[in-house]
Amino acid sequence: MLAEPRLKTYQQQIDARLDALLPSDSEPPRELARAMRYACLGPGKRIRPILTLATAQATREQEASLALDWGCAVEMVHCFSLIHDDLPALDNDDLRRGRPTTHKVFGEALAILAGDALFALAFEVLSTSGEACGILARACGARGLVAGEVEDLEAEGKDWGADELVRIHHRKTATLLGAACELGALSSAASLTLRSAVREYGQALGMAFQITDDLLNETANSEQLGKAAGSDRDRKKLTFPSVFGIDESRKLAEEWRDRALSHLAPLTGDVQLLRDLALFTTSRSA
Amino acid sequence: MLAEPRLKTYQQQIDARLDALLPSDSEPPRELARAMRYACLGPGKRIRPILTLATAQATREQEASLALDWGCAVEMVHCFSLIHDDLPALDNDDLRRGRPTTHKVFGEALAILAGDALFALAFEVLSTSGEACGILARACGARGLVAGEVEDLEAEGKDWGADELVRIHHRKTATLLGAACELGALSSAASLTLRSAVREYGQALGMAFQITDDLLNETANSEQLGKAAGSDRDRKKLTFPSVFGIDESRKLAEEWRDRALSHLAPLTGDVQLLRDLALFTTSRSA
Repeated sequence: MLAEPRLKTYQQQIDARLDALLPSDSEPPRELARAMRYACLGPGKRIRPILTLATAQATREQEASLALDWGCAVEMVHCFSLIHDDLPALDNDDLRRGRPTTHKVFGEALAILAGDALFALAFEVLSTSGEACGILARACGARGLVAGEVEDLEAEGKDWGADELVRIHHRKTATLLGAACELGALSSAASLTLRSAVREYGQALGMAFQITDDLLNETANSEQLGKAAGSDRDRKKLTFPSVFGIDESRKLAEEWRDRALSHLAPLTGDVQLLRDLALFTTSRSA
Repeated sequence: MLAEPRLKTYQQQIDARLDALLPSDSEPPRELARAMRYACLGPGKRIRPILTLATAQATREQEASLALDWGCAVEMVHCFSLIHDDLPALDNDDLRRGRPTTHKVFGEALAILAGDALFALAFEVLSTSGEACGILARACGARGLVAGEVEDLEAEGKDWGADELVRIHHRKTATLLGAACELGALSSAASLTLRSAVREYGQALGMAFQITDDLLNETANSEQLGKAAGSDRDRKKLTFPSVFGIDESRKLAEEWRDRALSHLAPLTGDVQLLRDLALFTTSRSA
């Protein structure tokens, strides 16, 4: 990932806090705790909680001690959505982040329920603020993440076009990244204007991130990805390369990245990391 | 159900409010909205939101206009848990409340995601209060509802005893009924003492309710139940009749009912409906 020293520190803080927030497997039902921990503590870029922390840093008007917990809540929701997305009834993926998917290790029933429990835990962690719960709930629900997943499934093999594609990727990826940033700003009690700016930044970053994901699925190999390469094409998924071709998709990713950067203008705090993350999004190789 | 005239009014209010809170199927993804509405607006006793409304009534210290919405949030979580519980990977039930289960009508993928979207919507509705989100999240998560479901699955065919049985039923049913009542008290800004009393009332009622469910699964026919009768026994589920026998289970249900009634003592408002609901719990035939 990025060579930013702060990233490593953030990742360590996030992993330690996730570890503390997740239930231990010392009390029953042990397998549930194990499945939750497997899905949440495995290798991962932790891009969402990093965004929450970096945004809190960039908008800080008061000590943002909540940002770490709230970022972890976003990561839990992300992991919940990956578990359910990988299920046989949905994408039927066997491999995620280089390891067998949760249902491959723990069985389908436990995978479904571990996802549900992670979702519940995210809101327990956020419950210090009703507003925070509202931001995350809206980003996840029938107009956000879940809607994107439904439309993503519906789109397979259909003759849908650019409008649907942008809407699906916006809901499936951009909304949650926008929420991660908005939670960071809320945790430091930033103004509504700044909250809106960082939400837009996060959403644009999310689009650039997702288009790059589509591109990597076409061009990288399975080892680099930690999951099956070319699986989108095999499945006739609606992706940016399938609609716009590779070169045009690269250009679009860069446009979204630049849009993300432009939303940082009103921020007066330290935006270096947010800027670096945007630049990294389109240049990464995995 | 009960002949209480207030019940009918409450049920109508709840159904109308659920209808308004659920997404309409006029915007995509339409099938997601349809699945959510199918799972949530079908026939049901609405016992949980009724408890929220009745508790708000019984503890009212100020106008409890939130109780209806918060009760609907609890019903959404209840419906989410039924959808996931009925899935092939879990209980594999084809029939629920006299109709085909959600995955039978909409397919497994959409059933999983409709459950997730109902869960998210519940927290969106509750997000007027972080405390309310916390109460519901704790009741659902890895120490509540989901934990109960995991242990319920683990218990099938095992030689578990009374302690495990009580813990599973407490988590699977009692915790959410306790939360429904506590949310009612919170919505009317009741004291912590009263909140704790109605939570205990709801949890004891939940135990009486679940034991009666176990008994009805043994003794009623499928038409009365709206789902397959005797299915617990066929599946070697851990139930009160399987551990204690029918007569002793009846006695235990009545003990929990009386315990529920005793928790109403500190309430100074109108507790008639809460009392009637407790009495009804053990005498119902479906």
